[in-house]
Amino acid sequence: MEVGEKMLVLITYDVNTETEAGKRRLRKVAKQCVNYGQRVQNSVFECNLDAAKYRQVKAILEDIVDKSKDSLRFYNLGDKYKNKVEHIGAKKSFDVTDTLIF
Amino acid sequence: MEVGEKMLVLITYDVNTETEAGKRRLRKVAKQCVNYGQRVQNSVFECNLDAAKYRQVKAILEDIVDKSKDSLRFYNLGDKYKNKVEHIGAKKSFDVTDTLIF
Repeated sequence: MEVGEKMLVLITYDVNTETEAGKRRLRKVAKQCVNYGQRVQNSVFECNLDAAKYRQVKAILEDIVDKSKDSLRFYNLGDKYKNKVEHIGAKKSFDVTDTLIF
Repeated sequence: MEVGEKMLVLITYDVNTETEAGKRRLRKVAKQCVNYGQRVQNSVFECNLDAAKYRQVKAILEDIVDKSKDSLRFYNLGDKYKNKVEHIGAKKSFDVTDTLIF
């Protein structure tokens, strides 16, 4: 991959929201993800990133989550992803400031 | 891709659980996904499928969901996915029969 080349990175997360602290972590994770990509499901973001931004968002999210309770996964779909993604059903628009949907 | 060749397919879903019918759909989706792959987060499954099985699981899930309310997404990571997936944090084991986690 060349410097600056962009790739589609899928970020998925499960944050344990049994506590108030957990709910705060979930909101923080979502708010950060919004800076890097598009929310396609409640806990799934599609982000078009170069390698530097990819490292950056990983580091930021890693700092937010509680690694003993929460799960973060990153999937790199590369730069030719048009035929790799399929959608069925509703395309909701998500409001990251709306805490109800978390 | 050759006939029978396997690929890693990521299945992610948002099922609207505001109604009892929605909760039933969510349980059905999860139960079907378990037949095709490994649950890695609440609403994320990683499935190692050939093209025929991929078509099959798509058709089954499409029949279960309410397309006006629920969202299904499929990401094909191909057959060389070892370096494309990164994980941070907890790796929970999921019990598909436990309705509490849905």
